[in-house]
Order: sequence, then structure tokens, then C-alpha cells
Amino acid sequence: MNPDDPMQTWLAVQSLLADVAAALDQRELDRWPGYFTDDARYTLQSRENHDRGLPLATMAFESRGMLVDRVYGAKDTIFHDPYHQRHILGAPRILADDGGTIRCESSFLVMRTRRDAMPTVLAVGRYLDTLRRTPEGLRIAERLAIFDNDLLDNSVIDPV
Amino acid sequence: MNPDDPMQTWLAVQSLLADVAAALDQRELDRWPGYFTDDARYTLQSRENHDRGLPLATMAFESRGMLVDRVYGAKDTIFHDPYHQRHILGAPRILADDGGTIRCESSFLVMRTRRDAMPTVLAVGRYLDTLRRTPEGLRIAERLAIFDNDLLDNSVIDPV
Amino acid sequence: MNPDDPMQTWLAVQSLLADVAAALDQRELDRWPGYFTDDARYTLQSRENHDRGLPLATMAFESRGMLVDRVYGAKDTIFHDPYHQRHILGAPRILADDGGTIRCESSFLVMRTRRDAMPTVLAVGRYLDTLRRTPEGLRIAERLAIFDNDLLDNSVIDPV
Repeated sequence: MNPDDPMQTWLAVQSLLADVAAALDQRELDRWPGYFTDDARYTLQSRENHDRGLPLATMAFESRGMLVDRVYGAKDTIFHDPYHQRHILGAPRILADDGGTIRCESSFLVMRTRRDAMPTVLAVGRYLDTLRRTPEGLRIAERLAIFDNDLLDNSVIDPV
Repeated sequence: MNPDDPMQTWLAVQSLLADVAAALDQRELDRWPGYFTDDARYTLQSRENHDRGLPLATMAFESRGMLVDRVYGAKDTIFHDPYHQRHILGAPRILADDGGTIRCESSFLVMRTRRDAMPTVLAVGRYLDTLRRTPEGLRIAERLAIFDNDLLDNSVIDPV
Repeated sequence: MNPDDPMQTWLAVQSLLADVAAALDQRELDRWPGYFTDDARYTLQSRENHDRGLPLATMAFESRGMLVDRVYGAKDTIFHDPYHQRHILGAPRILADDGGTIRCESSFLVMRTRRDAMPTVLAVGRYLDTLRRTPEGLRIAERLAIFDNDLLDNSVIDPV
């Protein structure tokens, strides 16, 4: 990827975000932490709390190790009604790019499907991502997943 | 943007439409009219009326001044139950491009979220946009927002 | 389209998928089979059956002639409550490209709107497409439309 070419950058960002979503949707959770840097932060928070600068978050992880731990929990230890996720992502908007780090925003709709039921809305909102160019390609250094709905229908087990 | 390069054109169109949606979703309504030309037209209409060529529309504005006026109304004078919008847009399809003016179509899903409630569908449909290349960049000269649902759940306050 | 340019390829794929969806959403069904090769296969199947390798499918067509036949059925012979579809597609992920054939995946949300009713979810899931470069442009050689919801609300008349 040539950082001076906005189209290459946009396509690389778009492609990363789609890959991350597909890992979650196919429930290939073990692949998920690999899209993040070692020191990555991941926060899933309601829009209300985000807008007011309040710290309470549904999920808050401060390293890739914590992401790996969550995946272990989601797959092996949390007892829950199984469901599938399906992400429908809007195109990313590149907010800033200094050659090393990219800040971008994208809207999401995440549908949840349980057995013998119609899909329901799990969350709608936006990702605020900070991406870092690394020798291995683009990685997420920080992901804020901000959902508009301050109510969540049922538990959120997998990362969004 | 080089009008002879279809990829640059597509990305510029896509980027404009995402910016417009983000202004609405973040409720930065004052930014919204700036994406339109001075003589812009904006129409929000049901698919049924659009397909039959009937004039009745939920919103119909005939200049940027009317857009500014609607923003003032939505922010300051209309008394209503507050809600957030979230647009999920399909990729734009470029229908025509004569070098100065671009006609394009894109599907939309707009979710509405109220306090202490799950998101609901505000509208699904498509934008039919006429964009103009101006010295300041691409601007919307005409936007037809056509929603499939002839029923609307509750009032529509902000533009879609 | 230059097969050596990943951006041109991506945009051509994205554009084809958007055109196919628009033909369905505008109910211009006669245009739909034209996006497929003569020997195309189209399968609409639940995720559960797909993941288990079970053959039962909601729709299974094995040539463009069968697609034309379905369109005839949907338009002229099946008696049903009319509805509109609206596809919201995620960006395609190119999984493989050998210069002649492209495999790609994209998430979909399909909303259904009936008269005097709010839109409902018809299906969420993903397309697994095999596209072929032909002298007439990209065509679909195989489409697997896999929906997460093993329940379908009401009948599915049109292809998804």
C-alpha cells in the first residue's frame, strides 16, 4: 500500500474492516485478535456514555492479550444462548492520515440471529478506529465501537 | 478529482454521500446544507408516489435556503421526542456522468433510536442524486430520497 | 478491466453486485438473469444447511434458463401478497482471483416492504459468488445466497 495514494489507502482500510467483520460473522473468533496491534485498545460503549465522556463501557480491553482472553471466554466458558452476528458496514470515512496512523469512522448495523427465530437488531452505531501501518499490514491500534441504542436486547457475548 | 478517472469519481461520490450521512447521524445539522448547491432541490417521497409521478412528498425543498430553514426548525422550533438516526448506505451506482454533472443511485437503510428503546427502522429506500462538480468540490444539486415504506413510524423531523 | 489491478477488479465486482441488487429492488426481474453465465448455478440456502453440507435449499437453479423460468413464475404465475425488496450490501471481499475467475463474499441485509406496513427483515446473510470474466464483462457463474435466519417470515417469491 502506498500511503500517498488515497484510493489505495481507502481500499486497504475498507478491506481490513470487512475482514474483521467477517471473522466475527463466521464466528472465527480466534482470527479476531490478529487484526489488532499488541497494545490495542477495544471499547464497546453506548453513544450516550461516549458523548458525555463517561467511562462506563460494555466491554473495555487494553491489550491484545485481553482480546484473546475474551475470545476464550466467548468460545469456551460463557454459558449462553447461541447466536450468529451479521455486520453490515457503511463505507469508511478517512478522518486523518499522517502516513503512519489512520483515523477513520464507519457506520455499522449488527444483526443477531438465534435458532428458530427471525433476526433482530443487536446494535447500530459507528466504529471510530485508529489504524497503524505495520510491516505486516494495517492493524487496529484502537477501536471504539459506539452503539446508538442504550438498551441492548439480551447479552452481548462476542465482540461487536 | 479527475473526471476521466472512473475510480476517482466513484470514490469522490461515495465519500460525499458518506459525509452527508455522517452529518445527519451525528446530528451536526448545520453542516448539512453545505453539501448542496445554492439552487438545490431536496425531496423525501414514498416510492408509491414517486413511481406514479404523484407530487405529494413528505419533505420538498427548492433551495439551500429552505434546507437551512428546515435545520432551524428541526433544531430549534419543532417539539418532538428526540431520536438518533443511523444511515447504512449501499455503494453508489454511477448512472451518468457528462463531466460536469453526475447522476447516481444508492440504497439506504435509516435506523432510528430513541432513549431507552431498541432501534427501529425509520426508512429503507434509495437516493437518486444529481451531483455537480464545483470549484469547491462535488455538491448535491438534486436529491430524491425515495422510501419503500409508505407508512412511517412516528414523525420524521430531521432530513433523511 | 485490467485483471492485474486489484482496485479496478474490486470496483468492477462491487459494481456488478450493486447492479444485480438494484435489478431485484426495482423489480426489473427480466434484467436479472442477464448478469449470470449460461451455465450459472444459483442457490438460496439457510446457513445451518450450508454449514452442515445438507442439500436442502429454498431455491436451487442450475442454468440461466432456470433463472428465466423463475422470473416468469415470480412475475406471472405465482399468486402472492406483493412486496418490495431492498438490498443493503456490505463491500465485497475478494477471496481468490486467478485472472479468469474471481471468488468473493459479501454480506447482505434484505428488507421486505409490503403495502401499508413497516419494512421487515426478509433475510440477513452473505453471498458467496464465483464470477467469470467474459468478453461481455463480469458475469456470475455461481451464487450461493446463505441466510443466517433459518426461519423465513412468509414466502420468498423473488430471488434474493
